[in-house]
Amino acid sequence: MGDGVTRIGVLASGGGSNMQAIMDRIDAGEIRGRIVLVASDQPAAFALERARCAGIATAVLPYHDSPSRGAFTAAILDALRAAEVELVVLAGFMRMLTGELEAAYAGRMMNIHPALLPSFGGPGMYGHHVHEAVLAYGAKVSGCTVHFVTADVDGGPIIVQRTAPVLEDDTPATLAARVLAQEHLAYPEAVRLYCDGRLRIEGRRVHILGAAPV
Amino acid sequence: MGDGVTRIGVLASGGGSNMQAIMDRIDAGEIRGRIVLVASDQPAAFALERARCAGIATAVLPYHDSPSRGAFTAAILDALRAAEVELVVLAGFMRMLTGELEAAYAGRMMNIHPALLPSFGGPGMYGHHVHEAVLAYGAKVSGCTVHFVTADVDGGPIIVQRTAPVLEDDTPATLAARVLAQEHLAYPEAVRLYCDGRLRIEGRRVHILGAAPV
Repeated sequence: MGDGVTRIGVLASGGGSNMQAIMDRIDAGEIRGRIVLVASDQPAAFALERARCAGIATAVLPYHDSPSRGAFTAAILDALRAAEVELVVLAGFMRMLTGELEAAYAGRMMNIHPALLPSFGGPGMYGHHVHEAVLAYGAKVSGCTVHFVTADVDGGPIIVQRTAPVLEDDTPATLAARVLAQEHLAYPEAVRLYCDGRLRIEGRRVHILGAAPV
Repeated sequence: MGDGVTRIGVLASGGGSNMQAIMDRIDAGEIRGRIVLVASDQPAAFALERARCAGIATAVLPYHDSPSRGAFTAAILDALRAAEVELVVLAGFMRMLTGELEAAYAGRMMNIHPALLPSFGGPGMYGHHVHEAVLAYGAKVSGCTVHFVTADVDGGPIIVQRTAPVLEDDTPATLAARVLAQEHLAYPEAVRLYCDGRLRIEGRRVHILGAAPV
């Protein structure tokens, strides 16, 4: 962008509280980015309502309106491109996409996982399943991981991780809430670093460059 | 023990800095335990020197003096039993033992691993290999895990975990040093909880009971 502000597209299926955390940091002037599109497969997703209230363009793309996963992915990609999205932020987006989107936005698409990857990640590990697995394993620490999206589910290069303790009386719900508080710090931080041009991917590692001199 | 003080046996192959951290907390009156034996497969292990300076009995059991791993394990077990050891603390012990010891001290033998299990654990993951793997994976958080020892390498029930950040310029050595500082807090804490009778194993989970009223 000419003005140095990254155009961000968000994909969300639910409440979009992580998106809200990013919006709040943008509004506070801490992130050199702007959310230009919020797309959802769920017409009733509260994330869409948040977007409308903030005057952000929305797109609703119900999964079953597409004849195939490939067509669904293509529709998403068309919407992102039409909005000239530079960075894609997955914020509780519950549909699998095809490799076409990952290829188009390689190194420019982030997701967040509610555990400390590589622990408790991979296919089937989402939402409450993650926290149930953490508790069943008896881990004493959990947290969240923001990573670039690759074809390897939950396996892309890690940008930010933050920790949360597992407490003696935790249920999946209480642990989820404690981890979510960390997600709301981790995700805006990852987006901020991206928009400041401070992330460099080398193989599996994401190097965080020093802040540019003012 | 009649006096409510747990008899601790330490197995160490090297410097024994984790053992020292436990000794320091015992000396400070914070752990209701006493180290009654330090055994090593390495005659020159500095852990043995630390023990002698503290007036603690030592046993040197060179691995190759035993005709088999089973005989080596049996010799260790004999030494622990002769010293009436109730809790076994593995502190950088670099020999594999057989299931006989795990069975004899089931739920009464601890080890520490320099990462946040279940990440970066299992066969071959020890010492610098762990920190190299953490850096190669690009994790942004590491730490340490104190767990009960079972036949599953690094897979026993977790007692305490503490975290350490991975920094941009880390080498395996700098990361190891930062994690080690957390090990020196985590291991004494796990031993303290054990000696206070506050650990209860249920399947994979270690419940930490509330402190007994004074």
